[in-house]
Amino acid sequence: MKFATVALATSMALGASALVTATAEAKTIETRWADVEVETVAEGLVRPWGIAFLPEGRLLVTEMEGRLRIIEADGSLGEPIRGVPEVTVRNQGGLLDVALAPDFETSNRIYLTWSEAETSGSNVTSTAVAHAVLGDGELHNLTTIFSQYPKVEGGRHYGGRMVFSHDGRYLYVGLGDRGHQMKESQDLDSHTGTLIRLYANGEVPQDNPFVGQEGALPEIWSYGHRNIQGIDIQPSTGLMWAVEHGPQGGDELNLPEPGKNYGWPLITHGEAYGGGQMSETISFNKDGMELPVWHWTPSIAVSGMTFYDGDAFPEWQGNVLAAGLRGQVIARLEIDGNRVIHEERMAVDYRIREIRQGPDGYLYLLTDERDNAKVLRLRPAQ
Amino acid sequence: MKFATVALATSMALGASALVTATAEAKTIETRWADVEVETVAEGLVRPWGIAFLPEGRLLVTEMEGRLRIIEADGSLGEPIRGVPEVTVRNQGGLLDVALAPDFETSNRIYLTWSEAETSGSNVTSTAVAHAVLGDGELHNLTTIFSQYPKVEGGRHYGGRMVFSHDGRYLYVGLGDRGHQMKESQDLDSHTGTLIRLYANGEVPQDNPFVGQEGALPEIWSYGHRNIQGIDIQPSTGLMWAVEHGPQGGDELNLPEPGKNYGWPLITHGEAYGGGQMSETISFNKDGMELPVWHWTPSIAVSGMTFYDGDAFPEWQGNVLAAGLRGQVIARLEIDGNRVIHEERMAVDYRIREIRQGPDGYLYLLTDERDNAKVLRLRPAQ
Repeated sequence: MKFATVALATSMALGASALVTATAEAKTIETRWADVEVETVAEGLVRPWGIAFLPEGRLLVTEMEGRLRIIEADGSLGEPIRGVPEVTVRNQGGLLDVALAPDFETSNRIYLTWSEAETSGSNVTSTAVAHAVLGDGELHNLTTIFSQYPKVEGGRHYGGRMVFSHDGRYLYVGLGDRGHQMKESQDLDSHTGTLIRLYANGEVPQDNPFVGQEGALPEIWSYGHRNIQGIDIQPSTGLMWAVEHGPQGGDELNLPEPGKNYGWPLITHGEAYGGGQMSETISFNKDGMELPVWHWTPSIAVSGMTFYDGDAFPEWQGNVLAAGLRGQVIARLEIDGNRVIHEERMAVDYRIREIRQGPDGYLYLLTDERDNAKVLRLRPAQ
Repeated sequence: MKFATVALATSMALGASALVTATAEAKTIETRWADVEVETVAEGLVRPWGIAFLPEGRLLVTEMEGRLRIIEADGSLGEPIRGVPEVTVRNQGGLLDVALAPDFETSNRIYLTWSEAETSGSNVTSTAVAHAVLGDGELHNLTTIFSQYPKVEGGRHYGGRMVFSHDGRYLYVGLGDRGHQMKESQDLDSHTGTLIRLYANGEVPQDNPFVGQEGALPEIWSYGHRNIQGIDIQPSTGLMWAVEHGPQGGDELNLPEPGKNYGWPLITHGEAYGGGQMSETISFNKDGMELPVWHWTPSIAVSGMTFYDGDAFPEWQGNVLAAGLRGQVIARLEIDGNRVIHEERMAVDYRIREIRQGPDGYLYLLTDERDNAKVLRLRPAQ
């Protein structure tokens, strides 16, 4: 891939067709089907984690330290919105994802995930989900609809990504193994290392796979996950796919089916930090456990993922685009049914936390810096 | 990947455990699961194309210009074996693959494919299959059991790879579109662009998918192929997989099922030579046509392929290893069911024509030079 840095005379040079006006430099990545321009839409963020698309070209972005901000169509950052949950900011914990309710247009309701403390300031935390009504500069009627059980010490592997089903009835939330208690990912009496499905109001759908099974938590959709960091609905099928961090290597793309076991920590394509197989009891596959649809080994430190169905990059329709933190790449995966049939990587040269398709068909990325993190946008080069 | 060239004091330094004694330099390729030593087993070949493993560490190798040779266990080349078919050597035509009969131990029978002329010396050719008994320096009872219909002018896209089913009953042969008559790959009244299945004696199995269908040739197993260059049986399932050359890009790994259409030239992931989509009538997919399990785009110019089930590289068991000509790589594909879930490439730095697993669990490669081509072997580095 070749890079060209293009200095733009003014932000206005990019024209009015874009959802948000880019404010700074752009560079071009040559790919098989398109020359992709990487524009800076906004900057000055601190560890942004989640993004949602408001009407009229405005963005809603979370910052891990507990701020929720609107980014205006001109790229300017709004003041933090008041009334977000109190978050425990520690390591990977903080304010995590944001999503609009399917009926946002009429309800103004949004959803948030965050690391929720047992008591204020405590290091005993778990991932929680709330909804609230987005008013003018503040949230109203904040209502917690889910708290991962159990709350534990330590600040790793919160998961936290959300997506609604196409019909808007179901909310999927990817969780994590919380880092130090991996084995619980195989148990159904905790939410550790699971992916859950709720109704939009937080109630449990009675056709969830473990409803009525003694000792199993009814919210669980699938289990045996390590740390789900990206989640989206496949446009052609309505099926929910997810990516998760592996250990050293073994980042996975999965197609989580109800009631199925994705194997962590008993199967993985990753290896122990420092090299070698994780342990003699860990293997590539075991009966009764699902293999990934794809794995990245060595790891790209996969973060967000989105299916693409826009018009800006017509050859990418139906593809998965997955972002990498350490890898600083976007992986474009061509999909046939439940298979990946090709991978192309685009070097973005930023640690990418999240990738989502905007309503304009462009791709929006969050970079991961503590200092001056950005919203980037991928669009076809002119 | 890192390379180290290791000069060996003498060929004997490699020890007696190897099937064939290496005769020259070795180099090491670092891969995820093994440091792989690339040894030269034999050299001095001219455009070798097919390889088979005789008892006692001897190899049987074809050269495109019409020679079949035994390579002794010490790497020395035998004189050409007399009695091979007359081949039309032109462009991609010549003596192609060689395989041992399943009952070789008692019958001494071998199978050959080659570009067979309509009349001696003619440029009107097609791919043919014969068997013969391998005697002392010559072939006996050469019997042609199949000739691709129709014979046409031109010297491209002969296919020619063979593999027997695990039970030895069936012989699969991959064919090509002959280069200039692509559309016939969609027709069933020619063998152009098909993969065929025969009994070992050349008779047509009556459960072949098009037996009894008017206007269809009964040998056809699957169709819509461009130029099949590698073919092997999956150890765990007994299913036959194949790789084929795409146009510029779009090399494919397929799992050819009986009666199915693999889409050439109507669907491909390749593009026209020089760039751009092949034409407006060509797309990635169409109803009723099968997508590949995997495609290499840009092309590696895929040639041979083999499943690995040896003990020398235990982590590779069940993997596909596919070789590239222009790519000069071996692609290692991890397989789950009908999916590729990971690719790793090893840079061999030779144009590779064929890759097969030897009875010793090492991998044998043929390089593609007209001058001093080699048999290489991949084994775990010491």
